[in-house]
Amino acid sequence: MTIRKLVAEFIGTFWLVLGGCGSAVLAAKFGGAGNPLGIGLLGVALAFGLTVLTGAYAFGHVSGGHFNPAVSLGLWVGGRFPLADLPGYVVAQVAGASAAGATLFSIASGAAGFAIDPSAAGTFATNGYGAMSPGGYSLQAALICEIVMTAMFLIVILGSTHQRAPAGFAPIAIGLALTLIHLISIPVTNTSVNPARSTGVALFGGAQAVSQLWLFWVAPLIGASIGGAIYRWLGTDGRPDITGETRA
Amino acid sequence: MTIRKLVAEFIGTFWLVLGGCGSAVLAAKFGGAGNPLGIGLLGVALAFGLTVLTGAYAFGHVSGGHFNPAVSLGLWVGGRFPLADLPGYVVAQVAGASAAGATLFSIASGAAGFAIDPSAAGTFATNGYGAMSPGGYSLQAALICEIVMTAMFLIVILGSTHQRAPAGFAPIAIGLALTLIHLISIPVTNTSVNPARSTGVALFGGAQAVSQLWLFWVAPLIGASIGGAIYRWLGTDGRPDITGETRA
Amino acid sequence: MTIRKLVAEFIGTFWLVLGGCGSAVLAAKFGGAGNPLGIGLLGVALAFGLTVLTGAYAFGHVSGGHFNPAVSLGLWVGGRFPLADLPGYVVAQVAGASAAGATLFSIASGAAGFAIDPSAAGTFATNGYGAMSPGGYSLQAALICEIVMTAMFLIVILGSTHQRAPAGFAPIAIGLALTLIHLISIPVTNTSVNPARSTGVALFGGAQAVSQLWLFWVAPLIGASIGGAIYRWLGTDGRPDITGETRA
Amino acid sequence: MTIRKLVAEFIGTFWLVLGGCGSAVLAAKFGGAGNPLGIGLLGVALAFGLTVLTGAYAFGHVSGGHFNPAVSLGLWVGGRFPLADLPGYVVAQVAGASAAGATLFSIASGAAGFAIDPSAAGTFATNGYGAMSPGGYSLQAALICEIVMTAMFLIVILGSTHQRAPAGFAPIAIGLALTLIHLISIPVTNTSVNPARSTGVALFGGAQAVSQLWLFWVAPLIGASIGGAIYRWLGTDGRPDITGETRA
Repeated sequence: MTIRKLVAEFIGTFWLVLGGCGSAVLAAKFGGAGNPLGIGLLGVALAFGLTVLTGAYAFGHVSGGHFNPAVSLGLWVGGRFPLADLPGYVVAQVAGASAAGATLFSIASGAAGFAIDPSAAGTFATNGYGAMSPGGYSLQAALICEIVMTAMFLIVILGSTHQRAPAGFAPIAIGLALTLIHLISIPVTNTSVNPARSTGVALFGGAQAVSQLWLFWVAPLIGASIGGAIYRWLGTDGRPDITGETRA
Repeated sequence: MTIRKLVAEFIGTFWLVLGGCGSAVLAAKFGGAGNPLGIGLLGVALAFGLTVLTGAYAFGHVSGGHFNPAVSLGLWVGGRFPLADLPGYVVAQVAGASAAGATLFSIASGAAGFAIDPSAAGTFATNGYGAMSPGGYSLQAALICEIVMTAMFLIVILGSTHQRAPAGFAPIAIGLALTLIHLISIPVTNTSVNPARSTGVALFGGAQAVSQLWLFWVAPLIGASIGGAIYRWLGTDGRPDITGETRA
Repeated sequence: MTIRKLVAEFIGTFWLVLGGCGSAVLAAKFGGAGNPLGIGLLGVALAFGLTVLTGAYAFGHVSGGHFNPAVSLGLWVGGRFPLADLPGYVVAQVAGASAAGATLFSIASGAAGFAIDPSAAGTFATNGYGAMSPGGYSLQAALICEIVMTAMFLIVILGSTHQRAPAGFAPIAIGLALTLIHLISIPVTNTSVNPARSTGVALFGGAQAVSQLWLFWVAPLIGASIGGAIYRWLGTDGRPDITGETRA
Repeated sequence: MTIRKLVAEFIGTFWLVLGGCGSAVLAAKFGGAGNPLGIGLLGVALAFGLTVLTGAYAFGHVSGGHFNPAVSLGLWVGGRFPLADLPGYVVAQVAGASAAGATLFSIASGAAGFAIDPSAAGTFATNGYGAMSPGGYSLQAALICEIVMTAMFLIVILGSTHQRAPAGFAPIAIGLALTLIHLISIPVTNTSVNPARSTGVALFGGAQAVSQLWLFWVAPLIGASIGGAIYRWLGTDGRPDITGETRA
């Protein structure tokens, strides 16, 4: 594994968090009630997906374009990624996400009236459940939702990068799968399916957000493992397919 | 036909209903009047299309990526799918859709204040006509709309997977055709064109939704047969082209 | 030229008008003020583009996928389409558009309270200028807008189907170019750039819409000719490239 | 370098400004408060991206499809574009952008009540900071935002056109990267990342817009240089790759 792979994962995850969380913080509610110019949940969902679509075309041939610890884990479970590379990838991803959180904070705080309310659900694009869920969804609903969404995300990733799938289209399928996941689940947990993304903004979102961060590591990692195992059986006839990186 | 094909159709239809109906139930109206954050009909239309786009890239090379009894029937009429496989596909699709309905219910019911109103049009993303049509459209309008939309859906499917069409792009064309169909017809019937999708949520939507379910089997199956017959003549010069699966 | 080409143009133009104008008539304002569920101008723009994207993948290998008299003319000017086929294509396109107008009317009139107001700008998705322009734009602004938009549309069509452009992507570029054109110009003329589309709904929109129909033949045909001439010089080094159909 | 390349850059930049700024001026707020038909920031973001997506498919094989002085500079820094061609490209781009500004003015002024308010942030789609920032963001926030966004834009461009990236998909990645950038940063500066785009409308936006134009040359050019340098190291193993144009 070269240093270039880790830099690519750093920059790609930086882009994911800056773009996805940045659109939520800066543009989702722009104009306020009665002046519906903001991009809303639809725009935020599109932004998250486009970070991955664009990042995967830019970096897929360098690092595989994971940008997400759950994806790296699920690719290992699915037989596509070597375990030895996992720790380095995760560190690079969390570092990139945190750098994005800091960059976003430096931009967002440049507007008069900017404030983070640590008790408000979804503040600074943080993930949460219960009182910190945008739609007030319970811990149990949040767990189910994050596990199922991440499992399906990995299935789409493993399926669309399978050697029998059309070559070159995987970044479109994977990026738009992330858009789809956000279209469904922003009201439930503000949508994580990515522990690095959750961590990168929780550091700026206050104690409540940090205290709920465990779920956005546990649930995506469980879901990714389930998805990886399902597709390993489904798509590869049980044969391992360790390539060290996904096929973009 | 292997068990893997049926599992792929199960998961793919699960994804279609969880994503399409899930976005409608959880996110369409989020924020309510005066706080226009919800994804609206446009977001729901996009979500339905993306379930098929992503599912077809993930599973197209496994099962053909039908996720819809009307599609399976229309592909048989169009000369692309063996009749012997039809019953198994339909069972897997309805089972996957029902599992999605149950999963969605378990998530949606985790929010305080969640309720299904069996007399409300479109409740829990159910399809309907007359009093159960979102825009109050008559039975006749609903029939015409579902037949025409499903016929066009099959024509796009058969055309974009034709051997003379550009290889690899069919999931984009097919998925975005489903988005387009929803952009047109959600107000009319909440858009079915897929008997499995209608069945999967009707089971949770109350007696009224179940009593109207017949139309969302009859009309899509008629429309798919018409579309399959048209394209069989149009695109294949009348020659049969039985391949057992679509070309993704 | 076979009958299949004309049928493909008929169905493709039917789809363009049913999808684009249908989304405008049925879904754009759904829910009304205070309940922002409707797809708005953005959803209509997306719908128009997706009719062409999906139709071009389905029919591009049959007829070239024009669905628009201005496109057929511009392709002839650009050296890509034989003049002998032009009249048949135009007749098939206008017939398909008119069939779509009738189908849309049969669906839309199935809702209580449906009415066409012949004096309202944009009624039944008709095109107009002056008092019939959605945003009250003058005849001159409408002329400039339709000419420039159609010229750019043809340039994108000729460029993206050029033999040096990446193969297979043209339907995406062309369809999304039509989406872009609508994102810009719906307020000006309700966006035509397609005489068949304008004619297909004007027949149902009242005398005022019919009286302004001339502009939506004249301006798109002028613009398409300009665009065809520009790209013929720009992209082909002056050499003719008559192939009888576009490369999808 | 042939005259055709400069004409392609002229028309492509014309399309970028006419489409992106045109959608903002004509359609973003259409219908006003209480009648949410306008395309909002999401529609404008999509329009900007689609100008580049469609333009790159149409002109990529002619000129490389830059449409932006910062892109041309960054491609030179990245080792993909000869310095000798830079001045001609920049002149063509600024000329095309200015022609688009004039065309847009001629259309927009055809509506009764059209007016440009030189003291209003974002008037005639101009870029600005401080009092001229749509969301009231400071000069420092604007600088950071434009530098980071342009750097990431160049990284996506250089990565997706790299010889190891899937061929043919770059216009999708690049166009949608521009959409993503707008989804994030319209509230901050009305989003430039393109000195030609800023110049083309500033000429019509009043003295205030012109007085802030320097930032939208300085910041994008700095950001593009940073992005070009990063990817040159990251993607090419340090080896120069001067091809004279990007691979579409």
